[in-house]
Amino acid sequence: MAATCQEANNNDHLISSSDTKHPANLIPELCKKFWGLGWVTGTGGGASIRDEDLVYLAPSGVQKEMMKPEDIYVLEISKQVDPKKRTYLRSPPSLKPSQCTPLFMAAFTKRNARCCIHTHSQWAVLLTLLLENAPFNTRIFEINNIEQIKAFGKGYQKQGNLGYHDTLRIPVIENTPFEEDLTESLEEAMEDYPDTYAVLVRRHGVYVWGDTVDKAKAQAESLDYLFQLAVEMRKLGLPWLSDIA
Amino acid sequence: MAATCQEANNNDHLISSSDTKHPANLIPELCKKFWGLGWVTGTGGGASIRDEDLVYLAPSGVQKEMMKPEDIYVLEISKQVDPKKRTYLRSPPSLKPSQCTPLFMAAFTKRNARCCIHTHSQWAVLLTLLLENAPFNTRIFEINNIEQIKAFGKGYQKQGNLGYHDTLRIPVIENTPFEEDLTESLEEAMEDYPDTYAVLVRRHGVYVWGDTVDKAKAQAESLDYLFQLAVEMRKLGLPWLSDIA
Amino acid sequence: MAATCQEANNNDHLISSSDTKHPANLIPELCKKFWGLGWVTGTGGGASIRDEDLVYLAPSGVQKEMMKPEDIYVLEISKQVDPKKRTYLRSPPSLKPSQCTPLFMAAFTKRNARCCIHTHSQWAVLLTLLLENAPFNTRIFEINNIEQIKAFGKGYQKQGNLGYHDTLRIPVIENTPFEEDLTESLEEAMEDYPDTYAVLVRRHGVYVWGDTVDKAKAQAESLDYLFQLAVEMRKLGLPWLSDIA
Amino acid sequence: MAATCQEANNNDHLISSSDTKHPANLIPELCKKFWGLGWVTGTGGGASIRDEDLVYLAPSGVQKEMMKPEDIYVLEISKQVDPKKRTYLRSPPSLKPSQCTPLFMAAFTKRNARCCIHTHSQWAVLLTLLLENAPFNTRIFEINNIEQIKAFGKGYQKQGNLGYHDTLRIPVIENTPFEEDLTESLEEAMEDYPDTYAVLVRRHGVYVWGDTVDKAKAQAESLDYLFQLAVEMRKLGLPWLSDIA
Repeated sequence: MAATCQEANNNDHLISSSDTKHPANLIPELCKKFWGLGWVTGTGGGASIRDEDLVYLAPSGVQKEMMKPEDIYVLEISKQVDPKKRTYLRSPPSLKPSQCTPLFMAAFTKRNARCCIHTHSQWAVLLTLLLENAPFNTRIFEINNIEQIKAFGKGYQKQGNLGYHDTLRIPVIENTPFEEDLTESLEEAMEDYPDTYAVLVRRHGVYVWGDTVDKAKAQAESLDYLFQLAVEMRKLGLPWLSDIA
Repeated sequence: MAATCQEANNNDHLISSSDTKHPANLIPELCKKFWGLGWVTGTGGGASIRDEDLVYLAPSGVQKEMMKPEDIYVLEISKQVDPKKRTYLRSPPSLKPSQCTPLFMAAFTKRNARCCIHTHSQWAVLLTLLLENAPFNTRIFEINNIEQIKAFGKGYQKQGNLGYHDTLRIPVIENTPFEEDLTESLEEAMEDYPDTYAVLVRRHGVYVWGDTVDKAKAQAESLDYLFQLAVEMRKLGLPWLSDIA
Repeated sequence: MAATCQEANNNDHLISSSDTKHPANLIPELCKKFWGLGWVTGTGGGASIRDEDLVYLAPSGVQKEMMKPEDIYVLEISKQVDPKKRTYLRSPPSLKPSQCTPLFMAAFTKRNARCCIHTHSQWAVLLTLLLENAPFNTRIFEINNIEQIKAFGKGYQKQGNLGYHDTLRIPVIENTPFEEDLTESLEEAMEDYPDTYAVLVRRHGVYVWGDTVDKAKAQAESLDYLFQLAVEMRKLGLPWLSDIA
Repeated sequence: MAATCQEANNNDHLISSSDTKHPANLIPELCKKFWGLGWVTGTGGGASIRDEDLVYLAPSGVQKEMMKPEDIYVLEISKQVDPKKRTYLRSPPSLKPSQCTPLFMAAFTKRNARCCIHTHSQWAVLLTLLLENAPFNTRIFEINNIEQIKAFGKGYQKQGNLGYHDTLRIPVIENTPFEEDLTESLEEAMEDYPDTYAVLVRRHGVYVWGDTVDKAKAQAESLDYLFQLAVEMRKLGLPWLSDIA
């Protein structure tokens, strides 16, 4: 269990803003939308936004479509000495920090992402199950020649987006009983696939990030679109890869 | 037909509150959400909340997405001497009590639940039909190694939640012409599966409960997610149980 | 083309009411909901409500989710001498009356219905296509032993609802190039199936009615639920009829 | 990349109106609805409206469900001398013009359309994939004897709509790495199929237009309805063409 901080001064000013673009307002708005898409059903999934040194996090176990700014955790990246013992600038009373925290942190520290989204989308889960039962490499989802692929950036610190003929590759890592134990394999997948903006978790869901909140959301939506398309293609006997050029 | 009570004083104060968390406000809000999820189509399904000795119940036959606090029935658990002849503290004029009442009561009295949700979700119905046609034990739905399973409590009076590798088991009971006649077999299923938070009803739907309103809702959403996933897995030839460990 | 009436006095008082239950307010509200369910896509489908001698009708060709009370036609049942030449108490300027009018009128005059709903639901269309390709009687949809069947009334002028074990039978009529030409076969189907509250139209959709607006809506929702369930059952190889008793 | 214009006077009056039917208000409202239908996921797709000589365009890469009138581009058709170098009457600061612009323009100049809609609907994409794998003409989608076909106009400068027995034909063009490079083949398809109101783009989506905004929207909805129906028909082994007459 991650450490919580119960200061007398709970730094509520960090999550109080009339700006609709403030992370403490954006995260609840995003999560409400994600609930409507079936991504954060039954308190699963979540989202986190980084603003310079501050990281804003949805808590564990709340109903995501009804989250409020007051539910948001805040921590400073530069102050996280021991990843096993997090200190929070702000902790909502009577909530628990999300087990996804170290995974969100990986996107922020290793990829300089500004926003990371975690969904339990059924399309993501079904896709990892189809791969698990495939006679080929089951650790990677590949699709090409679909227009929506152009919604993805070319990769970390690269300019521009993928092209229509490019193959989008999303690595798959194996699930673990405790979500935080995914961190090591998620970071490995990031190293093995330096250009990916997402990692699928077998029988669990997907982590997607982006250089901005808008890009993270657009990539998360586009990925889910491709996951659903891929599952439907499988039902119709259509291959995910083609050699159009 | 269950008895109704038409007192001169209809105890309207029991359902009048400006607190959005009051059961008489929560039930209509939940039912509206459930209608959007396809769980309470065509006046089917319902929900009930217990607060100490008081039980708040959605009525029979109303359009669930347009329910109002005034439509809510209220009864006292401790005053129910004869389960065949219920007395209500408050009965909405010109409505009928739900046939689900004894089933909700079973969750409250035998499991000390605070909230019980009944859906006619098509995924639940399809799942019971798939089980009915299966060459193995058709009275139990089993699935394991899916992250969403972690949304379920370990069981009545147990601490903590199921793990990723645990097998979620939901018993199935046979439907009866009169909904209240399900009570006996629902209670039997509760005894046979002392840790379950839900019972599927063949060709009908599901009953789900929880130790709090939030937990009942999260478990209902997670179950429906797993039911839908299981049906899609079947379409894709993927097994519900695997021996990953 | 049906006749329109352009009186100097257009009887706008007939569609102006602050009562949310007034037919001129209810029809737009219902149609908005139906658009969300995919029943009235692309201006297809519609709804009509009868209040004593007055019939309120959605017009032809408008976007159903954005209809307004001002768009509603009104006619008097008792004044319709010639079904080929309707006279309207109120006609919205620059709109056309719905070709569904004679079909709605059939439900009102032959079954004393208070509300009739016409959808182009894909589930209804798919079901008629499955029946068309079936090796048995293709003019009737039959399903039994599903709880949602209990949402249907037993039949015209009969008390009570169908039971769980009863078989719901919905006749199918063949489509015609002009919607009003369906009238005769719809009325025949009403005679052949005196207890039905709905008629499927091959490759087109469904007409559903009810003794009240609430019952028409609940029956329309329940039918669409059963149509979708039946299509999914077919995909999964599950039969629509079973001999449980 | 299309040229942008950054005038001192950005002509904001062109997109400021309290009239809900003004194109600068209509486009965001339409796009919000389309996002809900899954047509413009992840910033894909878009819409454009022509009002006499002025064309209003959704920008590139914005989240379509959150667009504002301030995001809208405006250009004059009569002033577009060089299609490779567009000049805009109004360009939103810090946005980019849509690559769809020349395709929208084709609908406006070659068909005198008033509105053109571009979706990435998965049903459109799946349909083009099914056609790609078909043993017959893969460049045309054909369906007949479905009521919803009546929602389509007979063709450019023709009166009336298609009939129930008519065959709706939608040409398919091959996708290109740069969306603007679709222009030539889109225009060819318009010439080859002079009556079509839509062109499918393989592995990409669809362009649909109409003589009015309402008709464009109704035809876009009806097409998507037919695309989904056709995919589901394929899953159920039902043919798209039949010889009912």
